Amino acid sequence: MMKGNLLISSMIERAERFYPKKEVVSRTSAGVQRFTYKEIGKRTRKLASKLKEFGIERGDRVGTLAWNHHRHLELYFAIPSIGSVLHTINIRLSPEHIIYIINHAEDELIFVDEDVFPLIEAVHDKLKTVKAYIVMTDNELPDTSVDNVYSYEEWISAGDENFEYPKDIEETEPAGMCFTSATTGNPKGVVYTHRSTVLHSMSLAFADSLGTTESDSIMPVVPMFHVNAWGMPYVATWLGSTQVMPGPRFTPKVLAELIQDEKVTVTAGVPTIWLVLLKELEENEYNTESLRAVVCGGSAAPLGMIKTFEKKYNVPFLHAYGMTETSPLATVSRLKSYQEDLPEEERFEIRAKQGLLVPGLEMKVVGSQGEVAWDGQDMGELLLRGPWIADDYFKDDRGEETFVEGWLHTGDVCTVDEEGVIKIVDRTKDLIKSGGEWISSVDLENALMAHEGVFEASVVAIPDPEWQERPVACVVLKEGHETVSKDDILDYLRPQFAKWWLPDDVIFMEEIPKTSVGKFLKRALRDKVKEHYETV
Amino acid sequence: MMKGNLLISSMIERAERFYPKKEVVSRTSAGVQRFTYKEIGKRTRKLASKLKEFGIERGDRVGTLAWNHHRHLELYFAIPSIGSVLHTINIRLSPEHIIYIINHAEDELIFVDEDVFPLIEAVHDKLKTVKAYIVMTDNELPDTSVDNVYSYEEWISAGDENFEYPKDIEETEPAGMCFTSATTGNPKGVVYTHRSTVLHSMSLAFADSLGTTESDSIMPVVPMFHVNAWGMPYVATWLGSTQVMPGPRFTPKVLAELIQDEKVTVTAGVPTIWLVLLKELEENEYNTESLRAVVCGGSAAPLGMIKTFEKKYNVPFLHAYGMTETSPLATVSRLKSYQEDLPEEERFEIRAKQGLLVPGLEMKVVGSQGEVAWDGQDMGELLLRGPWIADDYFKDDRGEETFVEGWLHTGDVCTVDEEGVIKIVDRTKDLIKSGGEWISSVDLENALMAHEGVFEASVVAIPDPEWQERPVACVVLKEGHETVSKDDILDYLRPQFAKWWLPDDVIFMEEIPKTSVGKFLKRALRDKVKEHYETV
Repeated sequence: MMKGNLLISSMIERAERFYPKKEVVSRTSAGVQRFTYKEIGKRTRKLASKLKEFGIERGDRVGTLAWNHHRHLELYFAIPSIGSVLHTINIRLSPEHIIYIINHAEDELIFVDEDVFPLIEAVHDKLKTVKAYIVMTDNELPDTSVDNVYSYEEWISAGDENFEYPKDIEETEPAGMCFTSATTGNPKGVVYTHRSTVLHSMSLAFADSLGTTESDSIMPVVPMFHVNAWGMPYVATWLGSTQVMPGPRFTPKVLAELIQDEKVTVTAGVPTIWLVLLKELEENEYNTESLRAVVCGGSAAPLGMIKTFEKKYNVPFLHAYGMTETSPLATVSRLKSYQEDLPEEERFEIRAKQGLLVPGLEMKVVGSQGEVAWDGQDMGELLLRGPWIADDYFKDDRGEETFVEGWLHTGDVCTVDEEGVIKIVDRTKDLIKSGGEWISSVDLENALMAHEGVFEASVVAIPDPEWQERPVACVVLKEGHETVSKDDILDYLRPQFAKWWLPDDVIFMEEIPKTSVGKFLKRALRDKVKEHYETV
Repeated sequence: MMKGNLLISSMIERAERFYPKKEVVSRTSAGVQRFTYKEIGKRTRKLASKLKEFGIERGDRVGTLAWNHHRHLELYFAIPSIGSVLHTINIRLSPEHIIYIINHAEDELIFVDEDVFPLIEAVHDKLKTVKAYIVMTDNELPDTSVDNVYSYEEWISAGDENFEYPKDIEETEPAGMCFTSATTGNPKGVVYTHRSTVLHSMSLAFADSLGTTESDSIMPVVPMFHVNAWGMPYVATWLGSTQVMPGPRFTPKVLAELIQDEKVTVTAGVPTIWLVLLKELEENEYNTESLRAVVCGGSAAPLGMIKTFEKKYNVPFLHAYGMTETSPLATVSRLKSYQEDLPEEERFEIRAKQGLLVPGLEMKVVGSQGEVAWDGQDMGELLLRGPWIADDYFKDDRGEETFVEGWLHTGDVCTVDEEGVIKIVDRTKDLIKSGGEWISSVDLENALMAHEGVFEASVVAIPDPEWQERPVACVVLKEGHETVSKDDILDYLRPQFAKWWLPDDVIFMEEIPKTSVGKFLKRALRDKVKEHYETV
């Protein structure tokens, strides 16, 4: 058999050749623009030729600080297609972390959105390796004292639209890079290869997984600086799907309108996005009947949210699980065929779990006594292995605890039911250890968020002299439900949990602190709780 | 990223772990039997342990002469999973070719169905490397003078159901082998690897391709000795689909009953199978509403057949193309989303073509003037490249003409339309070269087979002093249509083709000679036509 190197360039070439008329719909600050794959293909070749001309070599890192739009898509293909490495940088990180990341990755060139450029102005004198900044804008270049700043459109206009991508790249060469935040210290870099990216894209195209097709209109709401927007731009381009890029600083209204106007069939994002989208759907009328999958990952979707999408709006919800180190797709929550006949409530409960391992990966769930029983009760850490799972962090010693004997230790604690479906119950570090037993903060949070008066909730441990740790619930109430009391909350939880699982206290807050990607930031929340008790 | 070797053993392990309750339905001479993947998994491990015990080493070839049933499925996994090579032998070949194939492959062991065993008795004294024969039967062993004959069930009963598959196999190691008939001389061997098999399986699971899922009930009618039953047993096991194996010497009635009783959703085979199935559906009543795809490949499906399935029986038809050297999936004929609005007749015409290249492969269509125009007219040879395309024949010099500069030269002549959809118009060697122009025998055949009185038809060239070659049609009439004349046929063709395309003659026959896999055997047909003119 031929080797047939799995290369990212073959994906965009397929779109150019077989789907030249299909479109990328891109919302920028200048409004909604449309590009065919024929146009995107030419612009990407121009960009690639300019990167080569600039002196970007095989393996060199090129950074992006950008929202989801067509130019970012072009970078997704041009950079790896010449053998260099697409380094997507999270624009929501602190300036300190951004400086660290760019210097650590040794980015040669930075592509930056016009509205993110002030960040570059603030940090550029600390960046040691960057030779130029290319500003992505439909307008004039910003007035700046930073040297070597170019306009993307002007820069690529002199490029070669017939540039040929090199085909002597090995599939195991680096293609992309993304940093993941660490509990303490600097973010850690994960490097993707051509092989991992293509195989991961295949896993998204499986009919049993997301089943993306040419006929889909795919809108990644998850940022393109967050684990390659979960690989959506790659698979969508490869299959010639329509892509809808929501652009900078979108609102729930923008998302709802794009879904309606562009007949979006698949969209993907974190639960907090869907929470605010639901609010928008409740307040205003939209046609969402084109949607065949609202893909949700990043953190667990509350059961109530899934039900609201499906029962109230008739929008199919698809729960998935993964992380930066897993490219990210690891599990998808779909019913097995013989589970379709279960009572509705049971079906919802299964689908609210993280789901079944995607074909191509291997898993192990290891508790204190070795591999756990598949009984839906026994808890253990999820270990993963396979061709789109990281095996190290980029130039970082901290990989030693995470990558052990060929397995990724996810740091996520889960149960596995009789059918092999995993349910994440906590992060190893967020588990509440009470009297020698484990309490899942996530289980309590999901129950809390199903309360009609609760907007969001998070549970953390407080130190306890007798039990070692005890749970405390932090709750944000919905507007109009301000009269809900601590006792209401505890009475609501009581029938659902063992007595010793019930939180010792309920603290009402204005907001739960979140990470830059919308996950609950437990570290900050613990500080807030500590402060609360110190000031009470 | 981890390497994550793509290994066949991981596919059966996934079925055992996540789909232990799902079933393989196997029709043997003893009747229809049912096995769960849990049982198949244990039996496969037992088999693998026995192979190791027998002394089968990494890279050794193990032959099978068998129909589609659960034991053959076990061999599909056990043999490659220990690092040896599954060599499926076409039971319909001549004894001379079978002797050649087994000796050329140096098979160490042969697994043979009880009803095929007489073939072994006839040839065993010519087989140089085979150390034993394992007969697959539910009955007593046949009475035989052949040495070293064992019963499959007895043989595996002493195996180890907890045998662990080795994981130090490289994905590029050989896993399977299948011989393809040559125009002249002995069959040529194609060797599949773990990598090619797994990637090919992924291509089958793409929603835009066959889109096989766990919820499917998959019946490969295409024999397991023919290009791995088009890869169906691998992907079906991997995804935990129900599998329906039609077993030995099935009739159209058997197939129709299995479709009805086992609620088959996807079935796959060559056009001749679907022709006789249609006849059965016309004569007797069956419920076929479970079918979501009748996959057809091997040779072109006539447009009339596609229409009958879809319009008369409401059964979706899926035309695909490939060959032994391509694992086999290369193209699938699905409409692009924006073609769905075309008039019905145009949609059928597109879908009767061979279709669009599957993601993961590359193609080139080369005529006498280089790459052909994508205009649906220009003809050229189809060249293919990619990770599940062969790059050589097994220990054979004849690969030199077929594998040139990194491309497989398929020997198939096709056109490409504006959308990139290919239509096979002929084999390079079957094209009729008339007066310096090319006439497609396949186009004429498809038109002939759409005639209501024609059961099957084939067109070959006869030498012509003036025009070099001229077409002659060979036609088998349907029962009750014996009065159809040569002029009726020519009058029917006249409005559809240029005058110089019309056959010079129409010869009525009882039967068109076919290959062992049901394709028209043009070589034999040319001899028959020659004979016809010599005796007239």
